[in-house]
Amino acid sequence: MSILNLTIPALQAAYRSGTLTPAQLLDELLIRCDSYAEHHIWITRLSREQLQPYLEALEGHSPDTLPLYGVPFAIKDNIDLAAIPTTAGCAEFAYVPSEDAFVVAQLLKAGAIPLGKTNLDQFATGLVGVRSPWGACRNSFNPNYLSGGSSSGSAVAVALGLVTFALGTDTAGSGRVPAAFNNIVGLKPSKGLLSTRGVVPACRSLDCVSIFAATTDDAAQVLALTAQFDAQDAYARPNPDTNRRNYGMPAKPAFRFAVPLAEQLQFFGNASAQACFAAAVEKLEGLGGECQRLDFTPFLQAAKLLYEGPWVAERRIATAGVDPAAMLPVIRDILAGQVEAKAEDLFGAQYQLQAYIQQVTPILAHFDCLLTPTAGTLYTIAEVEADPIRLNSHLGYYTNFMNLLDCAAVAMPAGFMENGLPFGVTLFARAFSDNRLLSLANRWQQALQLPLGATGVALPASTAPAVGVDDRIEVVVCGAHLQGLPLNWQLTERGGELVTKTYSAACYRLYALAGGPPFRPGMVRDEADGRAIEVEIWRLPTAQFGSFVAGIPAPLGIGKVELADGRWYSGFICEPYALASATDITQLGGWRAYMAAGLPTKNRTTARPH
Amino acid sequence: MSILNLTIPALQAAYRSGTLTPAQLLDELLIRCDSYAEHHIWITRLSREQLQPYLEALEGHSPDTLPLYGVPFAIKDNIDLAAIPTTAGCAEFAYVPSEDAFVVAQLLKAGAIPLGKTNLDQFATGLVGVRSPWGACRNSFNPNYLSGGSSSGSAVAVALGLVTFALGTDTAGSGRVPAAFNNIVGLKPSKGLLSTRGVVPACRSLDCVSIFAATTDDAAQVLALTAQFDAQDAYARPNPDTNRRNYGMPAKPAFRFAVPLAEQLQFFGNASAQACFAAAVEKLEGLGGECQRLDFTPFLQAAKLLYEGPWVAERRIATAGVDPAAMLPVIRDILAGQVEAKAEDLFGAQYQLQAYIQQVTPILAHFDCLLTPTAGTLYTIAEVEADPIRLNSHLGYYTNFMNLLDCAAVAMPAGFMENGLPFGVTLFARAFSDNRLLSLANRWQQALQLPLGATGVALPASTAPAVGVDDRIEVVVCGAHLQGLPLNWQLTERGGELVTKTYSAACYRLYALAGGPPFRPGMVRDEADGRAIEVEIWRLPTAQFGSFVAGIPAPLGIGKVELADGRWYSGFICEPYALASATDITQLGGWRAYMAAGLPTKNRTTARPH
Repeated sequence: MSILNLTIPALQAAYRSGTLTPAQLLDELLIRCDSYAEHHIWITRLSREQLQPYLEALEGHSPDTLPLYGVPFAIKDNIDLAAIPTTAGCAEFAYVPSEDAFVVAQLLKAGAIPLGKTNLDQFATGLVGVRSPWGACRNSFNPNYLSGGSSSGSAVAVALGLVTFALGTDTAGSGRVPAAFNNIVGLKPSKGLLSTRGVVPACRSLDCVSIFAATTDDAAQVLALTAQFDAQDAYARPNPDTNRRNYGMPAKPAFRFAVPLAEQLQFFGNASAQACFAAAVEKLEGLGGECQRLDFTPFLQAAKLLYEGPWVAERRIATAGVDPAAMLPVIRDILAGQVEAKAEDLFGAQYQLQAYIQQVTPILAHFDCLLTPTAGTLYTIAEVEADPIRLNSHLGYYTNFMNLLDCAAVAMPAGFMENGLPFGVTLFARAFSDNRLLSLANRWQQALQLPLGATGVALPASTAPAVGVDDRIEVVVCGAHLQGLPLNWQLTERGGELVTKTYSAACYRLYALAGGPPFRPGMVRDEADGRAIEVEIWRLPTAQFGSFVAGIPAPLGIGKVELADGRWYSGFICEPYALASATDITQLGGWRAYMAAGLPTKNRTTARPH
Repeated sequence: MSILNLTIPALQAAYRSGTLTPAQLLDELLIRCDSYAEHHIWITRLSREQLQPYLEALEGHSPDTLPLYGVPFAIKDNIDLAAIPTTAGCAEFAYVPSEDAFVVAQLLKAGAIPLGKTNLDQFATGLVGVRSPWGACRNSFNPNYLSGGSSSGSAVAVALGLVTFALGTDTAGSGRVPAAFNNIVGLKPSKGLLSTRGVVPACRSLDCVSIFAATTDDAAQVLALTAQFDAQDAYARPNPDTNRRNYGMPAKPAFRFAVPLAEQLQFFGNASAQACFAAAVEKLEGLGGECQRLDFTPFLQAAKLLYEGPWVAERRIATAGVDPAAMLPVIRDILAGQVEAKAEDLFGAQYQLQAYIQQVTPILAHFDCLLTPTAGTLYTIAEVEADPIRLNSHLGYYTNFMNLLDCAAVAMPAGFMENGLPFGVTLFARAFSDNRLLSLANRWQQALQLPLGATGVALPASTAPAVGVDDRIEVVVCGAHLQGLPLNWQLTERGGELVTKTYSAACYRLYALAGGPPFRPGMVRDEADGRAIEVEIWRLPTAQFGSFVAGIPAPLGIGKVELADGRWYSGFICEPYALASATDITQLGGWRAYMAAGLPTKNRTTARPH
């Protein structure tokens, strides 16, 4: 038996068919873990005995009753698993928690099985995976190379097929850089979407729990199960987009994305990575993306704040009780920065950050996503040990701004460099775009068909449904809301943009309703005797659409309207009772033609009071 | 001539009728200002010559072309008016700005005329109005009493009928306490709604420009004209509620409000103020408010952070270049606080604040507003001069938390204490509730019929229209969205709450539509031959309503439905074409009865693909 495809659907199928039991899987995985001892993946691995209670908890259940029934996962060792030490990569700091971290508890409830606690850059401070007393975590493709960090062990455990998914944390890039270096998916959720209760803080105001998986489908399922609002986490935020169920294969092909100006891209001399990124831009265009080059200055300036400003002081708060002599020298040196920073300095840095946020907000509103390399290059362990601070900082060039600027991000495999090591890209967008990003990343992953991690297993087909995942809604208007007409301001004041002027399917009739001003038409589907009506498609932010709908008086409302190209959109519909007093103007082909023909005097009856 | 009713509609009427010109008004106001010289209202008053260019700019205009045509206003002297010194209450700090503050520029464009720059507690640090080298600003009802501060002169200028409205600023309560002490309206808008560009910072991360006016109608109009998003202000936020047009007289009578627990109310020995507040609670209940006592602990704890934590250090940033010897001793002493505060201390305080925000968020989501005294008592100038720090801090008991917790607030006149001095209450709610609060305050003001400020002029009738100002939308459901039925989760996952189970007006027919599952009814208005249908009203956050509507497949949609009580709500409507293949089930009276009668097998046709 050799189960290398550990994706959730594959395990569920095997469990359902009876060809595999969770106990059998664990037995195999423990042996596999032993074979990678030199990779320094784990700080604490659970023994077969320690795993037994988790197996027993599955009794009487199946994949039909527990969504993660028997799914093995790993936990970065700065996230609590009850009764197992949490070290954060520092033996002197270690404590044994009595409770599971909130996120871990959700996973255990769903039937997942924790294989152990993974290695990390000490106190989650680093992007390299070598800053650990438990040894440098090695790349899953070539042990001489970096695994990436700080969530090094979690990423490598997924890439080598030791677990289905893993939890990491991500303050500066720790949930993305290791994904890129090991050919797996790294989701850095929106700040506050996953509770950080039971997680050792790095920068508490910025920290995120992150998710590593081999596929976007698996990452999305873990996200759906863990993204539960935790009122006991001060930084938790409810998801305003109600997009929990919105992961899938995007139903709409076209999207807009941006990449940095050519001169703002940094590959630190790695021409092969540069070529990989150029190819990635073309691939994303090939998936329907309209690409624009963007001045990335505010992103890059915000990134510098993280390690050159008072957020370094924030890192000291969590380690305040630790003797500096007990830390690795490189961590001790970093944490010794900004010791003179006063409250005024932090206010000043926060003002700067706020200015960058203001600058990037319209950018993030305009594009469906932004695309960058996840890291510009990949070093060997020896190179980083010779130059530990500078090379580490190179790896954060595209990642350090993400939490400061309140973005969600997905690090995606994007092929291999000439040296055979993985190259990765990051799709990111504003907070709570998580599922939209994952949906786009799913299309990306299905198009690229790269193998799973370092296992060589072919990518399985996605089981995600087709969904509409935009946070803007397109609405078809046919009357007083047309551009330049009296109610058009109701669209523009909500940030509405005209998408196109077009026609309905040839199965509608148009009526001039009684009452007004404003004079209004009713568009009514009539498959037997309709024609194409002139309409406009407008695009509104979803959050603004509700107040628009609520403001529409009877007999009109918003339903679904078929357009000439056969697609259905939200648009104006009309109740049947109003047709009795209305005038059929279908033959004019549209409301503009009717209005141009002169004021509808014969419709000047009393308007309805609502 | 003696124009004491300076409200915008009164001036517009006088200008339109030709009984008054802006020049005549200014001439009278300048004389009136002189008569109140002992009140120390102004730091810089514009001369008749300096006012002339503003009068000339009105030529060729009228109230029909400029919404604030010839409306006089005052500007707190920490807000820039081009070419006039900005002192912030400190001569040594003064500078002459070359540009108007963003908010001032909007008002000038609208035709308003700036009478001058008003006195304030130095560097906007105080709630008393006595901390000024230009003399203690005196109460408009009794010159021995405090005016309140820091926006002292602005409030007194409005109360005495020297200007129609005035700009203040509000970090800790400076836009509310002086309103309470002078029987006028004080709007502290949501943070970021009014630009602070061109305003001397107090705590830049918290500062708001505030609006004083005699009526809520005037305050709402000034808000509408000044609440323009300013991308050059890093802390500016676009209004997500699209509620610019939503000020008015609330169409819906019932609302929920909360007041602190009795033992958390502080009147500092002022029994008359205590009685005034008890009466105010009853009055608000009399307006349709359902009152609940609430544990106010997180609000009170957050309030303490402002002057006992590192936000004091933030106040030093704006005054960094000022010689402490040039400051008033009381200001110098306050600004000398927290000098040792490090970046870590500020992070720690921000963590605490974040925990309070998390605690109050569900409270603010549940209630339409909260009600407190604006200040628990009102001291004489002599009392405060004898005990300047402690008595000042009493005045901030109900105000200091407001900006830290990101609330909007309206300070409202609420009658008079036994000593004849005004008592005020504050209505507050979460950010961007400004227009809803003002609408409720309008109903309050119209009910109380107090005179305008200290002028003795009777309150004019409100000219505001009736509006729906809730940020929740009530939606009528009649089918699969009913409680316990298959699509109900689409309401609950969006934070939907069941309001009531009721019936439609007796003019609807109900049809079982072809297709399913999910099986769905269509409710169709039929005034000739309908009956009452069983329905439920659900309440959804407006921002979530759009995605709900967008998810409804044809032939259904959201329009307006009449209920048994004659009111119209958003609710499900049905397109006419679908009725041909549907089954009339009107006689069953509702969808539950139909479902209870057994699965609709004869409707098991193919579902539409959308």
